[in-house]
Amino acid sequence: MREKWKNNFSEWYNEIIEKAEILDIRYPVKGLYVWFPYGFKIRKHVLNLIRNILEEKNHKEALFPLLIPEQEFSKEAKHIKGFEDEVYWVTHGGLEPLNVKLALRPTSETAIYPMFAVWIRSHSDMPLKVYQIVNTFRYETKHTRPLIRLREITTFKEAHTAHASYEDAERQVTEATEMYKKFFDALGVPYSISRRPDWDKFPGAEYTTAFDTIFPDSRTLQIATVHNLGQNFAKTFNVQFENRKGEQEYVYQTCYGISDRVIASLLVIHGDDRGLCLMPEVAPIQIVIVPIWFKDSERDVDREAEKLKKELKDLRVHIDDRDVRPGSKYYDWEIKGVPLRIEIGPKDIEQEKITVVRRDTCKKQQISRGNAARKVAEILSSISEDLRKRAWGEFNEHVYFAESLGEAKKIISEKGGIVKVWWCGEEACAKEIENEATADILGIVNESSGGKCVRCEKKARSMLQLGKAY
Amino acid sequence: MREKWKNNFSEWYNEIIEKAEILDIRYPVKGLYVWFPYGFKIRKHVLNLIRNILEEKNHKEALFPLLIPEQEFSKEAKHIKGFEDEVYWVTHGGLEPLNVKLALRPTSETAIYPMFAVWIRSHSDMPLKVYQIVNTFRYETKHTRPLIRLREITTFKEAHTAHASYEDAERQVTEATEMYKKFFDALGVPYSISRRPDWDKFPGAEYTTAFDTIFPDSRTLQIATVHNLGQNFAKTFNVQFENRKGEQEYVYQTCYGISDRVIASLLVIHGDDRGLCLMPEVAPIQIVIVPIWFKDSERDVDREAEKLKKELKDLRVHIDDRDVRPGSKYYDWEIKGVPLRIEIGPKDIEQEKITVVRRDTCKKQQISRGNAARKVAEILSSISEDLRKRAWGEFNEHVYFAESLGEAKKIISEKGGIVKVWWCGEEACAKEIENEATADILGIVNESSGGKCVRCEKKARSMLQLGKAY
Repeated sequence: MREKWKNNFSEWYNEIIEKAEILDIRYPVKGLYVWFPYGFKIRKHVLNLIRNILEEKNHKEALFPLLIPEQEFSKEAKHIKGFEDEVYWVTHGGLEPLNVKLALRPTSETAIYPMFAVWIRSHSDMPLKVYQIVNTFRYETKHTRPLIRLREITTFKEAHTAHASYEDAERQVTEATEMYKKFFDALGVPYSISRRPDWDKFPGAEYTTAFDTIFPDSRTLQIATVHNLGQNFAKTFNVQFENRKGEQEYVYQTCYGISDRVIASLLVIHGDDRGLCLMPEVAPIQIVIVPIWFKDSERDVDREAEKLKKELKDLRVHIDDRDVRPGSKYYDWEIKGVPLRIEIGPKDIEQEKITVVRRDTCKKQQISRGNAARKVAEILSSISEDLRKRAWGEFNEHVYFAESLGEAKKIISEKGGIVKVWWCGEEACAKEIENEATADILGIVNESSGGKCVRCEKKARSMLQLGKAY
Repeated sequence: MREKWKNNFSEWYNEIIEKAEILDIRYPVKGLYVWFPYGFKIRKHVLNLIRNILEEKNHKEALFPLLIPEQEFSKEAKHIKGFEDEVYWVTHGGLEPLNVKLALRPTSETAIYPMFAVWIRSHSDMPLKVYQIVNTFRYETKHTRPLIRLREITTFKEAHTAHASYEDAERQVTEATEMYKKFFDALGVPYSISRRPDWDKFPGAEYTTAFDTIFPDSRTLQIATVHNLGQNFAKTFNVQFENRKGEQEYVYQTCYGISDRVIASLLVIHGDDRGLCLMPEVAPIQIVIVPIWFKDSERDVDREAEKLKKELKDLRVHIDDRDVRPGSKYYDWEIKGVPLRIEIGPKDIEQEKITVVRRDTCKKQQISRGNAARKVAEILSSISEDLRKRAWGEFNEHVYFAESLGEAKKIISEKGGIVKVWWCGEEACAKEIENEATADILGIVNESSGGKCVRCEKKARSMLQLGKAY
């Protein structure tokens, strides 16, 4: 069931994105895609999930402009340095050149923090926690790929917070990390969390924490980042507050974001050769009922399907009454990843049963019609649980520890996944390791025990996580 | 209660947009504003309303890219002519000039119809009805104003449809008009519907129908448009289908849109000197409970407030337990337009009553605690009804008929609103009428009876609707 998915992943991905009607890749600009209605609905459910998690923790949704004037965008030196190669610039309005060039936001720190400067007066205005879900833009020169590497990131959820102390900002980093864990757990997307190396953190941040997952081709994908910004942007944009002592002080900030990549992961990680297999939590259709028509029984079967749909009113149920063979319906809904299929034929009615088929296992079983609603809900929740378990099982199988640089290199080239190696903490060593293992550094994890740096053999308390990153 | 609102509308508007925390106007680019969380919630409820109406009529939500390559954007000659003065152009990616200039969509026909060309094969693929809610851009050189005249329209709901016959496209125009009526009726925003003159319709359309409302300063605001596009864009973008006879034919299209102006109207039309007065349907907080604390009774009052909130669980209820005087709470929630306020003090508890104050009338009454939930729901729905009635009453008072050009001019300058005059149908006459009355033509309505053109005195079966348009 997962041959192509595993061994010919790129082809599988391109096919499924189009066949399951997630995105249309035929838009005439590189790196820009069109959301089909079906894909858009998955996106909606995913966004509802993250919105609920954020609102629970008192984040308020707001909306800031797309266009950032050059002088604001360029204020923070490290930030502009990090983005200057990939920012789109609007230079003309109508037929005339603009006085001030406008950047399409690649991310919104420079649009939001000038507003923080006018919003925040005193320590009682904090913590301030806002978020927005917007389109952002990166002029990608690398190979683009739907949902993974985009020129228009259509779904950028960015949260920005301000605090009256460094400790409170640290607490926020923890809260953000916990929120994202909860979110990815709900989606059944496994992750490893590590700290980005100092020379490759978010431009302008004190430090960056990253979530990485592993794809079927054993490459890794960064799916979320959390940044402690310290007072860096506060100083640039003059975001000050009156502290409890009555003194002016710069605020402490954090920001954290996820993107379309979350949706890519969700689609990919639970997929198989037949198509998608959606987590019930975010499936636009959780159950499809396929009436099995025979001569004379058509009306009874339809009536029974309608009746069952009404009983399942708390779920997203669709009756597929198209005039095509059942097999062809099964095929279509398997591609689209509907978690559960119910078949109702005259025999089922006679026996007071229904036939249900789980998308994840493709196993068929008959259940009694009497307590169908309860049983179906149970099956859906065990689908969630089983998908989550399978995904984590596979993920964990692809996390390795390498004793030496040679071993790391071998694992990376033969197996992929995430490889951990001891590291002394020196940038020079890290870069050598990266080069020799022909891998990317995903991040650093600190360990309570210790070992020896695989490069210089000095004592080490942290490990590098390596992988071939998308 | 409506002195300033009426006589000093501009000042009222600017103040309320900021004080009620709808938008922050301090963003450092002209015509771009920041949605505050409170305003954003109103927007959310408004969008839920229109989404439900559209989905009920089988419209599917999709999402198309913001950036449109120059060659696509320029294909439709009239369309580009209509927009060339106001399109923002992206010319650089990073530090390099782009090979192909990219337009920020001012509207999305030229992004969507190339996709229609690949989606539509046969008559059975239609009607095709999609919509999206996106940000669009216009390089406005006129005076900008929050929600009314923007450079980034943050809330552009555009629907696009394709049909196998002209008749079906006509039916769609009717459906769209009915949907918008339903939408504006739900919001209590009155409107007049008319057909835009041929020389001033949507660039590329066969004809355009417009919805206009009237603001307190007696100026008019166009709040929705519906376009029958005929086969014009279909020919440009080669959108063909195989008809029932097996021949290739160009599709028939319509499109229709609303924008942030809907939200402006909603805020403005029901407002008064104390602030907003939100329709319960879209109020982020429908009921605010203000506990009236006295020594010793604080805990009882709080307990009672919590208990009542639980009973009102189907409504959006907020308990304001800030440590400030009740009067200052009343003031804040009146600005923000919360439809109903409930005060609970020790006396109310003793008498088994609660005190409720309607935002629209500011009238206070006591109701019995026993059936509070039912009674409160009733009051909310009569607030909706009364606001709707009041708005339509005022609107109708500002729609005039003028016998002569002189009278039209006098009404326009002294009273404003919408003025109807007989018109022969000639463009030259219309332009003269527009000039002499110093008004804008909002549109044309056909009448079963007839009169004489106020300009040339020829026989007339239609009327021009004139107004000072925003």
